[in-house]
Amino acid sequence: MDLTPDQEAEIDAQRAQNQPTRRAVAPELEEILYQPIGVLDHGFVRVVDYMGDDAAIVQAARVSYGRGTKSVRNDAGLIGYLMRHRHSTPFEMCEIKYHVKLPVFVARQWIRHRTANVNEYSARYSILDREFYIPAPEHLAAQSESNRQGRGDVLEGDEAAWVLDTLKKDAAQAYDHYETMLNEGDDADPDRQGLARELARMNLPLNVYTQWYWKVDLHNLFHFLALRADPHAQYEIRVFAEAMLDTVKRWVPLAYDAFVENRLNGAALTAGQIDVVKRLLRGEKVDQESSGLSKRVWNELAQVLEL
Amino acid sequence: MDLTPDQEAEIDAQRAQNQPTRRAVAPELEEILYQPIGVLDHGFVRVVDYMGDDAAIVQAARVSYGRGTKSVRNDAGLIGYLMRHRHSTPFEMCEIKYHVKLPVFVARQWIRHRTANVNEYSARYSILDREFYIPAPEHLAAQSESNRQGRGDVLEGDEAAWVLDTLKKDAAQAYDHYETMLNEGDDADPDRQGLARELARMNLPLNVYTQWYWKVDLHNLFHFLALRADPHAQYEIRVFAEAMLDTVKRWVPLAYDAFVENRLNGAALTAGQIDVVKRLLRGEKVDQESSGLSKRVWNELAQVLEL
Amino acid sequence: MDLTPDQEAEIDAQRAQNQPTRRAVAPELEEILYQPIGVLDHGFVRVVDYMGDDAAIVQAARVSYGRGTKSVRNDAGLIGYLMRHRHSTPFEMCEIKYHVKLPVFVARQWIRHRTANVNEYSARYSILDREFYIPAPEHLAAQSESNRQGRGDVLEGDEAAWVLDTLKKDAAQAYDHYETMLNEGDDADPDRQGLARELARMNLPLNVYTQWYWKVDLHNLFHFLALRADPHAQYEIRVFAEAMLDTVKRWVPLAYDAFVENRLNGAALTAGQIDVVKRLLRGEKVDQESSGLSKRVWNELAQVLEL
Amino acid sequence: MDLTPDQEAEIDAQRAQNQPTRRAVAPELEEILYQPIGVLDHGFVRVVDYMGDDAAIVQAARVSYGRGTKSVRNDAGLIGYLMRHRHSTPFEMCEIKYHVKLPVFVARQWIRHRTANVNEYSARYSILDREFYIPAPEHLAAQSESNRQGRGDVLEGDEAAWVLDTLKKDAAQAYDHYETMLNEGDDADPDRQGLARELARMNLPLNVYTQWYWKVDLHNLFHFLALRADPHAQYEIRVFAEAMLDTVKRWVPLAYDAFVENRLNGAALTAGQIDVVKRLLRGEKVDQESSGLSKRVWNELAQVLEL
Repeated sequence: MDLTPDQEAEIDAQRAQNQPTRRAVAPELEEILYQPIGVLDHGFVRVVDYMGDDAAIVQAARVSYGRGTKSVRNDAGLIGYLMRHRHSTPFEMCEIKYHVKLPVFVARQWIRHRTANVNEYSARYSILDREFYIPAPEHLAAQSESNRQGRGDVLEGDEAAWVLDTLKKDAAQAYDHYETMLNEGDDADPDRQGLARELARMNLPLNVYTQWYWKVDLHNLFHFLALRADPHAQYEIRVFAEAMLDTVKRWVPLAYDAFVENRLNGAALTAGQIDVVKRLLRGEKVDQESSGLSKRVWNELAQVLEL
Repeated sequence: MDLTPDQEAEIDAQRAQNQPTRRAVAPELEEILYQPIGVLDHGFVRVVDYMGDDAAIVQAARVSYGRGTKSVRNDAGLIGYLMRHRHSTPFEMCEIKYHVKLPVFVARQWIRHRTANVNEYSARYSILDREFYIPAPEHLAAQSESNRQGRGDVLEGDEAAWVLDTLKKDAAQAYDHYETMLNEGDDADPDRQGLARELARMNLPLNVYTQWYWKVDLHNLFHFLALRADPHAQYEIRVFAEAMLDTVKRWVPLAYDAFVENRLNGAALTAGQIDVVKRLLRGEKVDQESSGLSKRVWNELAQVLEL
Repeated sequence: MDLTPDQEAEIDAQRAQNQPTRRAVAPELEEILYQPIGVLDHGFVRVVDYMGDDAAIVQAARVSYGRGTKSVRNDAGLIGYLMRHRHSTPFEMCEIKYHVKLPVFVARQWIRHRTANVNEYSARYSILDREFYIPAPEHLAAQSESNRQGRGDVLEGDEAAWVLDTLKKDAAQAYDHYETMLNEGDDADPDRQGLARELARMNLPLNVYTQWYWKVDLHNLFHFLALRADPHAQYEIRVFAEAMLDTVKRWVPLAYDAFVENRLNGAALTAGQIDVVKRLLRGEKVDQESSGLSKRVWNELAQVLEL
Repeated sequence: MDLTPDQEAEIDAQRAQNQPTRRAVAPELEEILYQPIGVLDHGFVRVVDYMGDDAAIVQAARVSYGRGTKSVRNDAGLIGYLMRHRHSTPFEMCEIKYHVKLPVFVARQWIRHRTANVNEYSARYSILDREFYIPAPEHLAAQSESNRQGRGDVLEGDEAAWVLDTLKKDAAQAYDHYETMLNEGDDADPDRQGLARELARMNLPLNVYTQWYWKVDLHNLFHFLALRADPHAQYEIRVFAEAMLDTVKRWVPLAYDAFVENRLNGAALTAGQIDVVKRLLRGEKVDQESSGLSKRVWNELAQVLEL
């Protein structure tokens, strides 16, 4: 993560703010407010605003005049109940806003979550920085042979070296040409007009970094995190989700626990899988063939129950 | 507006909270935070939380690291530009949460605005209060003769008296029967089981009061207010919109001004209407017949331009 | 369900339409297109349009140029996989439109599902019919003693008779007064102005029938059905969900099967519940106390696995 | 636009389908159903499904049992009224699905319209084709000097030649390296593992083509078209919007006319601009200084009214 001194000063100025408010405050989250958490080689995620706390969930569920909370134990119980029974609206009463710097190909996965508000840095209007995601050697993975949408072993030796080198060189060359096409700044050639920014950007590769403000309610954030902190998610977006999980824990610890218990470490079983579990519990021997499940569904069950 | 002493105490306790925060604070809005603003005979609207301020709009539009604002004049100019050119996403970066008490028939209009988060008091789970909207005599309007969806003159004399009396009596009787059906509380008849709450409520009229938490971003709030603070909106929802306008002014004064200038007091012209204006400006005499506009479209133009 | 001869003629005229199309067609659904399916005493649900079929889901998942389907077996496997792994977007490629007649208190639950398009009959603009939901005697349930949001035994004897009678009389009286307030039609009293429709409606009870067009994509329809065809849903909305399940089966039989297998008859387990299952499968004796689960969570597991 | 013989055969097979349906049919749209309309050098847009027609808008507005239409003139009047008064829900009752092939940087603008359903070709799962957008010489524009987000004159001579050549060479080289990184297919080097697809794609530039299924309701499509068929939109997305406008005209001609009249060729005036028009109509001389408008707002008015 590379911040200019100006950016650092701006962040410090934000962190130095300290005003009284009558609103709910989440002290653990205040501690890291505005602070960038580094992700990948040049990316970051930082919380820039939030609304509500655990009590706001309880308050909304009870439509109460005051804080609405009883004891931590009662509140935790209610929040767990709401999550288990898919009463999602109380979780929508909390809102958080992130500033994220991320490679474009990650941004393209991310944006598919539509129930959020986004303001992205405009490459029509402004010039992108010379920053590209280059995987760390230990994340330079081969194509998986079993899963068309996954990764296998880490590349090694000459192959790895060539890939890394090529990613770097191609990005550098693309950016050099981008700058020449733009022909802006002190070194601009007075004999050339310079290509429109909205066109020149098309020469940049998908690992160029962009940034945006992303605002979402807690219910939809949990949905995002359930999909993107999942082992099936691409590593490069998963690390963002993991960094965000930490901010959620600071913000709404009871809801976070309920999320981990119910979603992140929970599992959904199909009718057929439930049937197999019942047979197993009755002491019956069941294997894939006799289970009535397809191989894939059987394996998914075996993984959940460590059969 | 009728609050129990308990409710008043809860609100006072909320207002007494005062904690430091690093977040953006809107001091004018803090002043009235949690305070119910009376609307209609028993309703209210009160702000219970908010996120962001005018600077957050500017900050998002610029995807800046810090506050992002320049001068008030610059910020006002940018906010006006964003609104005129329908760049709606920066306005989505501000969020507000209201607690509203309102008659059910108003709630049914309100809920059609889907881009918001809602938690409503549950009449399956709890018992509704004995509170009904009865129009003030000056709002007891006749059906409009020109507009099937509007109001005409105020009813007077015997007719008005009978309507008011009937609304009150029918509501009182419906509520008496509701209570008897429920058969709960100290006076419950031990020989009767009591009808399920989720069924008994169906005997209540559409002017019974309900309440909810309603959370929305500023862009969608403006859309709501543009439609519901409009003279064509039903009076009973318009008064809620008007009370909310005031809270918006306290919260994001620059965005509020842009909204009033561009939407509330602005107007959209059709291609045909623009053409008529051009002809008029060239000094041509144009009336409805020669305008090429239908009567209705002509009248709408005449009203905007006070022709 | 009561249709006027005019309404029946209109529906017959729609059903008599028969035009060629190049679009995907669902023949089983065409059979019942436009036909009202009676629900409750005066309600109905009828499919008035649809877009896509099972193949459209496959086609979208594969972003194919043609139909995209391989064999029914392959398609079923893919559709099951998509549903298990929460790849919801291909299901959004199918869309269905219903015309529904339903009591207002049911409409108020229904509308909370925001990801749908709705056009409701306007009681500001038009006059509502004299139709109210009166429960059949076998659905006149007492309040549940164990679940604040549920039903217990059916009311009997005098209590039941009085409740039914009161519901009917109060509704009839409310409607009589509604009509008198409106003072419209042939019998209007020329000496009275008549109350505005938008006001008079407030005298009607929550069991009055309304109607709407409701359009939704298949993913969001499944979400609605999962919640509303669930035993915890109020009976009066569940019967609508059940009638709609049938239309879904005719429309997209493979997706329907996947939905029943994965959602309707599937179950989500928490991390703690999975842990208990693992212990049980290892032959350990586990009861609620030793399970580490709360009573409620233990009971929910016991119900799923018929422990 | 380049289709393989297989793709052409699949499209022909779709077009050859012809089945009876009871649904509303839009014959003009059926004529071009499934047919790709070429956009840019390798892109296209084609309608692959639709639901509803002009009558469906009227039907929903009236919540009718039958077709709901009266005369074409009445229907056109009602549709115009609905659009002028922002009654958007009846337009949501029509739905259309497109298959679009477009450069990634265009896809990134497009996806910001969140109220639509999308399934995009997955470059995690599949290999992208060797197809890149290279602007036609007449669209190779310089950066605008007056508008940071716009284009100026067309580049000429050596500069234009160098830009075009560089765009082509960089894209070709990036794709060559992409293929080598993947190391798949008949020419694969058995000594290399091949980089995971989800990683290799990051070497491709933003002008590589992707494709998706995009489904949207008519109200939100109009919103998209109002913004993207606007002269301020980037040329490369505007041409897609223009191609789609044509399909809308074939589908819902009355709604299309209302859209052109009210939105595309209409204009929104601010309160201050309306005031200026009133003064002008009263014969007053008004220039920017005396108008009370900022320069920018004055110029926007001057442009609308050709002052």
